[in-house]
Amino acid sequence: MSKRTEIATLGEFGLIRHLTEKIELKNESTVKGVGDDAAVLDYKEKQVLVTTDLLLEGIHFDLTYVPLKHLGYKSAVVNFSDIYAMNGKPKQITVSLGISKRFSVEELEEFYSGLQLACDIYGVDIVGGDTSASLTGLCISITCIGEGEKEKIVTRNGAKDTDLVCVSGDLGAAYMGLQLLEREKRVFKGEKEFTPDFTGKEYLLERQLKPEARKDIIELLDKAGIVPTSMMDISDGLSSELLHISKQSNVGCRIYEDRIPIDYQTAAMAEQFNMNLSTAALNGGEDYELLFTVPLTVHDKVSEMKGVKVIGHITRPELGNYLVGRDGGEVELKAQGWNSLNE
Amino acid sequence: MSKRTEIATLGEFGLIRHLTEKIELKNESTVKGVGDDAAVLDYKEKQVLVTTDLLLEGIHFDLTYVPLKHLGYKSAVVNFSDIYAMNGKPKQITVSLGISKRFSVEELEEFYSGLQLACDIYGVDIVGGDTSASLTGLCISITCIGEGEKEKIVTRNGAKDTDLVCVSGDLGAAYMGLQLLEREKRVFKGEKEFTPDFTGKEYLLERQLKPEARKDIIELLDKAGIVPTSMMDISDGLSSELLHISKQSNVGCRIYEDRIPIDYQTAAMAEQFNMNLSTAALNGGEDYELLFTVPLTVHDKVSEMKGVKVIGHITRPELGNYLVGRDGGEVELKAQGWNSLNE
Repeated sequence: MSKRTEIATLGEFGLIRHLTEKIELKNESTVKGVGDDAAVLDYKEKQVLVTTDLLLEGIHFDLTYVPLKHLGYKSAVVNFSDIYAMNGKPKQITVSLGISKRFSVEELEEFYSGLQLACDIYGVDIVGGDTSASLTGLCISITCIGEGEKEKIVTRNGAKDTDLVCVSGDLGAAYMGLQLLEREKRVFKGEKEFTPDFTGKEYLLERQLKPEARKDIIELLDKAGIVPTSMMDISDGLSSELLHISKQSNVGCRIYEDRIPIDYQTAAMAEQFNMNLSTAALNGGEDYELLFTVPLTVHDKVSEMKGVKVIGHITRPELGNYLVGRDGGEVELKAQGWNSLNE
Repeated sequence: MSKRTEIATLGEFGLIRHLTEKIELKNESTVKGVGDDAAVLDYKEKQVLVTTDLLLEGIHFDLTYVPLKHLGYKSAVVNFSDIYAMNGKPKQITVSLGISKRFSVEELEEFYSGLQLACDIYGVDIVGGDTSASLTGLCISITCIGEGEKEKIVTRNGAKDTDLVCVSGDLGAAYMGLQLLEREKRVFKGEKEFTPDFTGKEYLLERQLKPEARKDIIELLDKAGIVPTSMMDISDGLSSELLHISKQSNVGCRIYEDRIPIDYQTAAMAEQFNMNLSTAALNGGEDYELLFTVPLTVHDKVSEMKGVKVIGHITRPELGNYLVGRDGGEVELKAQGWNSLNE
């Protein structure tokens, strides 16, 4: 029998790296290929940003509690978020759907209405796609194309020693929203109507079911004349993303637990679930906030920026990646992010 | 209960049209959106072409008899074919995979080696993607980005009365290859090794398992200084594609049965299967040949072109779309193409 290595032994990122490490770029128009939030292509004047996301039923979403309109909205927005994370602007998407017979035209209309709503709000055109039957669940593949200015595109590999580490918004709420929905799903199991009372937890649900991409932050940074030294969006969890930036920039980082922005509802829910709040904020995925680094010289500017918080700083690589706790103790950051291939 | 329309009542194209008809293009950079082989985006100097394809196990391929390396090759090539069909050049692809646990790393390497081989041969870079677990079968989504010159991009809507209708290569072989593989699969059902004898039928298998995109034809046309008035690739069957061109160009067509190019192996196999040969050539999918129209004035040039055959001509729309039989009788063309949503 031939050699067999289980995918789990490599993990998702390991697998991608393994499969793509021998790829050599050939075209002059290919500035950056595999390995960042989006690929960078040089078509003169503006650079073209391309990103793609695959969403599979039962893996990325559960139609028991995810309305199709919200799913359409979210499917588009998570792609826009990748383009913003390059300091670019999403312009077009293509949408491919694999659909089983249990879906009706009306349900697909619902999905498309959410997709279109997101596109209208963010100024994006749907320019193509593919629709096919599926033997099993719903399969969604979206590719987003955006534009960026050559001198202003931000990748993951530019963080420098002494840079400030910043995040937008707050973290952990989308994860708490998911926990809440999963719990209610168990409670309502066997019943036909899924109508739990979510009063006082609306923010958590909104963060999970209808996230937004931080177009506003990209615009604020531009207005302030700041180009981050590195940036990515937080989809797998803060810890995981920080380690990406550290690795690709060849630096280390110190993050302060008491600086991590957390919403009141997230904190209340963590207590109710008896979960560690920082763990949820560090490792809960799907926040779609921006994580970026800026030079120390713009400290005053970013500190004043609405919706942005400085949570730590970049160090030399030999100092590693640590979370500094409220008591001053240091805990090494580990990627425990949401890894669908290991589940 | 709310209204429920089954997808089958609309069909694949009807569904896409239904879902996308209300989309309005907003960006100056969006020249052409939904409705052709690829979207056209204007990023100055060169125009950017984007196309995407979704391939699902059990719908588009059967791993009983499709080697993963061939599947990787074909997944890439079918996308390149769409870019060539716009008279463009494929430059980059993104690859998203949904993978169930039954696949090993080696099997995915096989898939990628086929993908990479196609990219090497056609001069394309793999620039991104997404990899995820799948609860069921293999799911492949590829997006291809290519470049085209503004004045030379060819869409489906430019065919004019008296234009010549041309096709490259020969038709029906990929369909016959599929029939052959399906028959052998039934024969070998229950046995562990799938090793039938395909001597004398190699061409049919190659056309089904490892198709090529007609880069050579695009280069020949360019060298001859010919820009087709309309073009598309034949993926769903000649009849279906001819009707697309007729509808979008607001014309009719006459195609001559005795002019349709068919390989010897295709003809022999049709006889063996007791199938109508013209039906197979007209409606069998996956040929990935080019169907295009040119002005009557270049008749001599295209007639001399290797690998190109003139099969008929464009008429005024009121004359309809007809196949002229060997006996001179006319049969209206119908789209009986390979429609995965109706299966």
